[in-house]
Amino acid sequence: MSMPLGKRMGAELIGTFWLVLGGCGSAVLAASFPTGIGLVGVALAFGLTVLTMAFAIGHISGCHLNPAVSVGLVVGGRFPVKDLVPYIIAQVVGAILAAAVIYFIASGKAGFEVASGMASNGYAEHSPDGYSLAAGFASEVVMTAMFILIIMGATDSRAPAGFAPIAIGLALTLIHLISIPITNTSVNPARSTGPALFVGGWALQQLWLFWVAPLIGAVIGGALYKGLAREP
Amino acid sequence: MSMPLGKRMGAELIGTFWLVLGGCGSAVLAASFPTGIGLVGVALAFGLTVLTMAFAIGHISGCHLNPAVSVGLVVGGRFPVKDLVPYIIAQVVGAILAAAVIYFIASGKAGFEVASGMASNGYAEHSPDGYSLAAGFASEVVMTAMFILIIMGATDSRAPAGFAPIAIGLALTLIHLISIPITNTSVNPARSTGPALFVGGWALQQLWLFWVAPLIGAVIGGALYKGLAREP
Amino acid sequence: MSMPLGKRMGAELIGTFWLVLGGCGSAVLAASFPTGIGLVGVALAFGLTVLTMAFAIGHISGCHLNPAVSVGLVVGGRFPVKDLVPYIIAQVVGAILAAAVIYFIASGKAGFEVASGMASNGYAEHSPDGYSLAAGFASEVVMTAMFILIIMGATDSRAPAGFAPIAIGLALTLIHLISIPITNTSVNPARSTGPALFVGGWALQQLWLFWVAPLIGAVIGGALYKGLAREP
Amino acid sequence: MSMPLGKRMGAELIGTFWLVLGGCGSAVLAASFPTGIGLVGVALAFGLTVLTMAFAIGHISGCHLNPAVSVGLVVGGRFPVKDLVPYIIAQVVGAILAAAVIYFIASGKAGFEVASGMASNGYAEHSPDGYSLAAGFASEVVMTAMFILIIMGATDSRAPAGFAPIAIGLALTLIHLISIPITNTSVNPARSTGPALFVGGWALQQLWLFWVAPLIGAVIGGALYKGLAREP
Repeated sequence: MSMPLGKRMGAELIGTFWLVLGGCGSAVLAASFPTGIGLVGVALAFGLTVLTMAFAIGHISGCHLNPAVSVGLVVGGRFPVKDLVPYIIAQVVGAILAAAVIYFIASGKAGFEVASGMASNGYAEHSPDGYSLAAGFASEVVMTAMFILIIMGATDSRAPAGFAPIAIGLALTLIHLISIPITNTSVNPARSTGPALFVGGWALQQLWLFWVAPLIGAVIGGALYKGLAREP
Repeated sequence: MSMPLGKRMGAELIGTFWLVLGGCGSAVLAASFPTGIGLVGVALAFGLTVLTMAFAIGHISGCHLNPAVSVGLVVGGRFPVKDLVPYIIAQVVGAILAAAVIYFIASGKAGFEVASGMASNGYAEHSPDGYSLAAGFASEVVMTAMFILIIMGATDSRAPAGFAPIAIGLALTLIHLISIPITNTSVNPARSTGPALFVGGWALQQLWLFWVAPLIGAVIGGALYKGLAREP
Repeated sequence: MSMPLGKRMGAELIGTFWLVLGGCGSAVLAASFPTGIGLVGVALAFGLTVLTMAFAIGHISGCHLNPAVSVGLVVGGRFPVKDLVPYIIAQVVGAILAAAVIYFIASGKAGFEVASGMASNGYAEHSPDGYSLAAGFASEVVMTAMFILIIMGATDSRAPAGFAPIAIGLALTLIHLISIPITNTSVNPARSTGPALFVGGWALQQLWLFWVAPLIGAVIGGALYKGLAREP
Repeated sequence: MSMPLGKRMGAELIGTFWLVLGGCGSAVLAASFPTGIGLVGVALAFGLTVLTMAFAIGHISGCHLNPAVSVGLVVGGRFPVKDLVPYIIAQVVGAILAAAVIYFIASGKAGFEVASGMASNGYAEHSPDGYSLAAGFASEVVMTAMFILIIMGATDSRAPAGFAPIAIGLALTLIHLISIPITNTSVNPARSTGPALFVGGWALQQLWLFWVAPLIGAVIGGALYKGLAREP
């Protein structure tokens, strides 16, 4: 990573823009269209944003696109703590810009209502399928921990070189296949923040969980892989 | 790229033929069949045309299959401007031949009507889900810009070698997962031109947008990656 | 290819067994189950049989699994004509064994009727969506030609090494995404022969097309790539 | 494989936890949600658990995640018999922990009933689509045999390096695309044991089949590949 911090922040901003535009955008624009993409399509879209960007900008910034990933990689000893705050700022800005583009495009159809239409994350009465706060919290912690563990493992120097974007992108698809009905799936505080700023109200009130739970999961995942993989 | 221009044009013609036959063909023939492939299947089909052809003819012509890609690569400094017009001609001819084959096969079923049945791109009253001209224009510009940025990044010498066809093909799948309901997704003027010539009328009247917006997006995407990725 | 012919025939038999068991089996057993896999699932299944087997036995027999592929590779100068008949025999035997296993499993459910239940290929009144003989013939020729062209290109020494199973497997998925409604998709005479022997009647009467059209397509595809890719 | 046995067991435990959490969890939580993931989504989820973990921990434990895989690799001469029991213990413990997490999360939704809700495997009156014991037994034997054959082939030193996680993960997806309606698909005794312990009753009474049939299949698959692939 010899690229200057400004370029790396630019890459993180663009990459997180793509993650939210593709993931939340497909959910808002295409999930419930007749013969639309449904949950499989949205899960695929989230994963493909990461797969495509990891090939496109991995060599520039490492392609975290997610504050929980940056934190997990600090805990796992793969990312310098001094770059953490700049990365998170770039990620959140990218997510907000993407939410703005989704809002602009979605508003181009008659009848669009922002309150129900931005793919925000939620629990209890705002869980897509009515799961409790405890279920949502547990799901976000476990899913993020496993996500970080897979990221650490697939980018380990002992893993096959070049395949990490496929493993990591499809891990995010898998996580969405499991947990969209529970919380609409975050595992990424930036992804939750962008849409929540446009929806306001309940989405902002519930936003704390989608920072706290993924960051706890990230710490667990980073520490777990570090302990597991260390050579004797 | 030491192959002669004629062979490269032949490869672009065959590749764009496959892109339109597979992408538009699956939409026309299989999307609305009972238990048919729906939007996920069409998105997958478009992406797989590029993934398969990039492995098959990437070493012959570079496998652009799209005037916007050729223009974006000129802007990004990866493709010589003198080959631009021959490539675009080959791409448009391939797209028209594919539309002819779709027309022939689709006509082999009783009740086929070309006016509604060639997967043409449109906006406003011809948007699949009723999105405005402004929404369609914005979508085509942003999607094409991100497509070119991913193509530039995945074929960068610092990216993992050999994986670019996967990244680029699945990027096109992702773009369709997001934006089929908006414009039926173009990001490719050749792909729009083939079916429009058979549908005529509104499809030809709206065709300008699917040349202008993707080409603007291509210039943005090529310039953006060039600025982002340059070593200090 | 220094393995003895007997082992290579064994690999082709097992591989074609897997192609028909996975492709036709998923169609018979899982396509119309409630929330079943539909056409996308069947298309994916066919492609994954080839992707998985090409990684598993590609180094033993080349993993053709299809008389049209073997013929196309002879025309393209990649496979010795003296091994053609043994390969085709092994492929057809594998396909028949797979049809027998599907028949045994499917008979374990009350109400199974072989006449409508073996995923046979057909045209006109036996086309899944009512396409004519001409449409079916054209589709099988074009799809097989493109399939062979992709196989030749992805296994070219100038293409990225190791990725051919992905390109070829997903090409077969793509072909099914386009053409299941037309003929139930063959592009493979062995795949058509196995189920037809169990269904009998119309399936045997229409079987000629699924030998003739794929083999014509194979010759076209092999010759086309050979002409296109030759260095000056 | 120079990692100590304890770390390898830890990796197998975590990996099998992920297999059951992702595969059974997606089935329990997301399969029948409106516009939910259906059988294609569940098949994809099972495969992606193995694909992602094989990249993440393959270099630690070999990533078996399945007693049938460990047995098959012993028969095939790839895994030392002395490590077999510790691996199986770790796999079963991981599967039970995953079932506990699914139970906790699923209980967070009003109306959850464990008796019908843990994605247990079954035959006859507990086959998802009413297939007999004989059909279920045959399916589990054949599917597991082919799974082991693909694992042996894709990890053969003559196969392309690095791609085995893709081949093996997508083989598991394919197996689910074919056989979910028959037995809910096991091919993995640990995966069957976790949910059965929570469901009790019929699931425990039928559990024998999902140890016996996959292990028979594993022996066949390991021996078959060993015979087929040996150099003369």
